[in-house]
Amino acid sequence: MKEYVILNVKPFNKKIPVRKGSDILSSLIKSNIFITSSCGGKGICGRCKVKILKGYFYSEPTGKITEEEKNNNIFLACRTTILGNLEIELLPSTIIPEKILKEFEKGEEFEHFKIDLKKVYPFSPLVKKIFLRLPSPNFDDTLSDYERLIKGLKKYIRKERFNIDISNLRKLPNILRTSFWEITVSIVENKETIEIINIEPGDTSKRNYGIAVDVGTTTISVSLIDMNKGDILKTEITFNKQASFGDDIISRIVYAEKKDGLEKLHHIVSETINELIVDLSKKCDVSINDITSVSISGNMTMVHLLLKINPSFLRKEPYIPVANIFPILKCSDAGIRINPNGILTIVPGGYPYVGGDITSGILVSGIYKEDELSIFVDVGTNGEIVVGNKDFLTCCAASAGPCFEGSGVKNGVRAINGAIQKVIIKDGEIFFETIGRGEPIGICGSGYIELLAELYRNKIIDRNGNFIKENDRIVENEGIKEFIIYERENQERIVITKADIENLIRAKGAIYSAISTVLKTLGLEFKDIKKFYIAGGFGKHLDIEKSIEIGLLPNLPVERFKFLGNTSLTGAEQYLLSEKFRNLSEEIIKKLTYIDLSRSPIYMEEYLKSLFIPHTDF
Amino acid sequence: MKEYVILNVKPFNKKIPVRKGSDILSSLIKSNIFITSSCGGKGICGRCKVKILKGYFYSEPTGKITEEEKNNNIFLACRTTILGNLEIELLPSTIIPEKILKEFEKGEEFEHFKIDLKKVYPFSPLVKKIFLRLPSPNFDDTLSDYERLIKGLKKYIRKERFNIDISNLRKLPNILRTSFWEITVSIVENKETIEIINIEPGDTSKRNYGIAVDVGTTTISVSLIDMNKGDILKTEITFNKQASFGDDIISRIVYAEKKDGLEKLHHIVSETINELIVDLSKKCDVSINDITSVSISGNMTMVHLLLKINPSFLRKEPYIPVANIFPILKCSDAGIRINPNGILTIVPGGYPYVGGDITSGILVSGIYKEDELSIFVDVGTNGEIVVGNKDFLTCCAASAGPCFEGSGVKNGVRAINGAIQKVIIKDGEIFFETIGRGEPIGICGSGYIELLAELYRNKIIDRNGNFIKENDRIVENEGIKEFIIYERENQERIVITKADIENLIRAKGAIYSAISTVLKTLGLEFKDIKKFYIAGGFGKHLDIEKSIEIGLLPNLPVERFKFLGNTSLTGAEQYLLSEKFRNLSEEIIKKLTYIDLSRSPIYMEEYLKSLFIPHTDF
Repeated sequence: MKEYVILNVKPFNKKIPVRKGSDILSSLIKSNIFITSSCGGKGICGRCKVKILKGYFYSEPTGKITEEEKNNNIFLACRTTILGNLEIELLPSTIIPEKILKEFEKGEEFEHFKIDLKKVYPFSPLVKKIFLRLPSPNFDDTLSDYERLIKGLKKYIRKERFNIDISNLRKLPNILRTSFWEITVSIVENKETIEIINIEPGDTSKRNYGIAVDVGTTTISVSLIDMNKGDILKTEITFNKQASFGDDIISRIVYAEKKDGLEKLHHIVSETINELIVDLSKKCDVSINDITSVSISGNMTMVHLLLKINPSFLRKEPYIPVANIFPILKCSDAGIRINPNGILTIVPGGYPYVGGDITSGILVSGIYKEDELSIFVDVGTNGEIVVGNKDFLTCCAASAGPCFEGSGVKNGVRAINGAIQKVIIKDGEIFFETIGRGEPIGICGSGYIELLAELYRNKIIDRNGNFIKENDRIVENEGIKEFIIYERENQERIVITKADIENLIRAKGAIYSAISTVLKTLGLEFKDIKKFYIAGGFGKHLDIEKSIEIGLLPNLPVERFKFLGNTSLTGAEQYLLSEKFRNLSEEIIKKLTYIDLSRSPIYMEEYLKSLFIPHTDF
Repeated sequence: MKEYVILNVKPFNKKIPVRKGSDILSSLIKSNIFITSSCGGKGICGRCKVKILKGYFYSEPTGKITEEEKNNNIFLACRTTILGNLEIELLPSTIIPEKILKEFEKGEEFEHFKIDLKKVYPFSPLVKKIFLRLPSPNFDDTLSDYERLIKGLKKYIRKERFNIDISNLRKLPNILRTSFWEITVSIVENKETIEIINIEPGDTSKRNYGIAVDVGTTTISVSLIDMNKGDILKTEITFNKQASFGDDIISRIVYAEKKDGLEKLHHIVSETINELIVDLSKKCDVSINDITSVSISGNMTMVHLLLKINPSFLRKEPYIPVANIFPILKCSDAGIRINPNGILTIVPGGYPYVGGDITSGILVSGIYKEDELSIFVDVGTNGEIVVGNKDFLTCCAASAGPCFEGSGVKNGVRAINGAIQKVIIKDGEIFFETIGRGEPIGICGSGYIELLAELYRNKIIDRNGNFIKENDRIVENEGIKEFIIYERENQERIVITKADIENLIRAKGAIYSAISTVLKTLGLEFKDIKKFYIAGGFGKHLDIEKSIEIGLLPNLPVERFKFLGNTSLTGAEQYLLSEKFRNLSEEIIKKLTYIDLSRSPIYMEEYLKSLFIPHTDF
């Protein structure tokens, strides 16, 4: 007999029946409550902290909990076994929010950008809806229903080959007759074949929508698109709840290798997308049934997980994905709920660690067609770099680690309300700004970059990242020095530790040395770069000058840098909207060459040179 | 509260719990016991007779039960309500047998034929299995799994376009690696695209099987085919249990229009096919998983029902099918269980009442490529006629009614054990032969034709079908004269009635006049026909001379007639085996013209002239 007890989760006051003997982290996940866990429940990262209010439990001893925390009844959720009814409180900094992070109206943020793209990538949507007034049959015209439909379509589409599936064949006879031979047909061009994906009575051709998705390791962004006009109606962004199973893609792959792990990771991401689709449709007053296509742009691991394909071989030498160019699939293949006959397309990806998200970036930035040398850098949990022009394109991927996403650092948080994102230190005083202007709960990626620059500017740390002199704000905690940024009334502190600084230097060094390695391999120099495109999460919040100062970005004139925002999402949108974009995406990945940093003789040298502020590469 | 009682069905001794108040016929069908019912349970045909042994029931008065039967406790199953526990006995002549009717070894019956066909239709199977030894990836060869697979296939297949579905993509990474990059790929050519339908570890290319199905209104025939050698391994034939819902296609369509009717008819036929597939696989020691393709040849109504597509508009003017040429479908679309990735193909059909079964007949008989004028006649519940040569092909369909299938006539039975199939009357004595040589239970189609000829030869009936003179064997029963063929010890009789004779004359007249109408419409005469091909159920059991004598067949030299057996099944087999056959099948239906007899001014005149023995057309 399995014995059940009650886990009461504050601040939600959610009472969950859980099996006695299970751990808190898995119990939370089972109830769809997601908290951060970089290592995915292995007790290594020390991120899944919870406060225990009362009840019966046993918690394994761990070095990840300080004495102070212990006194405060804080324990690791993954290492704590529930032995009886238990009441816990989640810490604000660990909760992965249920609610939407941001939303944009009709391409709001990138308005300027979108106008350019319409010129570069002419409008030719992936799914077209065609209204047909078919002649009704009589004894002199006894064409079958399907052949009649094709004859009607041929007036609009000059193709010879058509295909239809059983579900549409089954609907056809009744729809034709109840609609008096006036129907709307949704079609998609699959190479030389026209696939008939949906048939509706009457004229519904005005209602033709698509969904573009950027599946990131940390965030998921979804746009609802009017496929007739080419307009992005609304965009919503939320966190990828897979983060409960580890911050980086390797932890996700390791989790996927466990029993039911792949199924679970797949389910979480597809349900997150489904929630955003429902939300967007409501807000834009669009029926989900009128959405017939989805495009996905993301790194290879995220695409594998979404499609429920074993990602294991992406982390094993020689790192092979299941496919670079995917066939047109069905929305149900990814568990995505739009019109049941809807299709699913994947932006093709060049390499296991340079996926469709980067193909999107290349096409959106346009570096593949410029005369001058440009660079495209997408900084997320991984950093991908593409260098090239109209003649060549070379890429690489650097593992920056999750600290720019606010993970793996003591008080790191994602870019949520309360995150410190701007910092100035002046005359020993520290000034900061949080997202939403409220009480600070931690520091996000761009906050850390500013903090590092300010600590260095004010000579609080040296170029090795060591604290130089005594300072009121520098204290020692369990043998590690830390710099106090903020102290709450209850004496809880927000700090940056010596370990955090080392971590951040390694992260910025990984990106910088990846760029310099690609350039050296190609026999190029930083000064040859005429345009430097930055895409990804922190995008426009990033302070260019401070980034140069700490040695994240190379020392180029500020005007050469350009923020592109989420180019992966923009790519997914364009994939639905432009045939030229779709065709080019397949061409680009054939043209793209790859430098494997882990096997590059130059990289280790460059990396070691970059582990200073800014670096030794003047 | 629903009250349940027990229905005990003899001779099976099957005890079924049934809802009190339901009728016997539906209760039997629900328990998968199928008895004949020409009208599908409307109380019109009087075919679903059962003997009630004991219990509680109420049976509606009906003219379909004779006084004698009433005394014998025989009632109509569809008109009898179960009021309490009930014990019934099914009559041998009404049971649609569970067991297989016939089976053939390796093309046994048509051996000669098959050899010819291999010359006419070169071997090029629809599904090919290709064994690939792929190079394993390394850092210098990092092609993705799918692209590696395609590269391997291109050595064997000179095509540019490939397609794969999610189920095979999901399997791919593990299969490649556990099989050390040695895999077998099943492919099908869909126009210009190669569809990858299955991937298996190791070399399974020797095991490549297909299933060919003739779905007839009355019988279903299935062949298991070795797709590598082009051999038909075994054929099995059974009854179409849909017959419980009516003998002819119109009754089936009417039933399909009822709530759940289509679902039920679909289920019955697909399960019947599945049973035969299981049986054939066991007997031939073939794994069902190694069967990857199914081809279907049948009339349009049967194809609609199998695919669960509303057949309603096939019986409503202007009689339109859902499609003439079907796309390649999945086996699951028809509920057929072979390899889950298996495909389903349908032999294209030219007209609503001249379907894929007749396309098969045209191609198997070869009339489309002969210099001389030939005729092809397929006699089943409907009779289809095709006249033509290499320059033209014209067809029509005549409703012969079910009496040649042993239905709609008093003692008619299907060609099962105990059916009288040969008859001689000499010096007032009657001699007959039954199938299986056992006790006679009724008369089958070819038996009725012989009987009619013998009655006419012996001047027992005149050319109008009236009994001419007194005869010991002629008795009157409830005002209708009947001729006694056999009397059992219990005084039960097997007879042919005046009504039966009229019925048979109408049936043979329908076929004969259809042929003469087509010829007259084309300005041709019987003597122009150099070859007369006969296909369909009674095929080789038919006595040509007697058929000419009664006016079913025209008076041509006997050597011009040729029996082809079940050309619909042979066509389904060839559809799997030969690309030429597949391509020609689409060409043939475009070439085929149709004469609608119901709208032909000639037909009614010809029909009236044919309602004599033999006819008035000397």
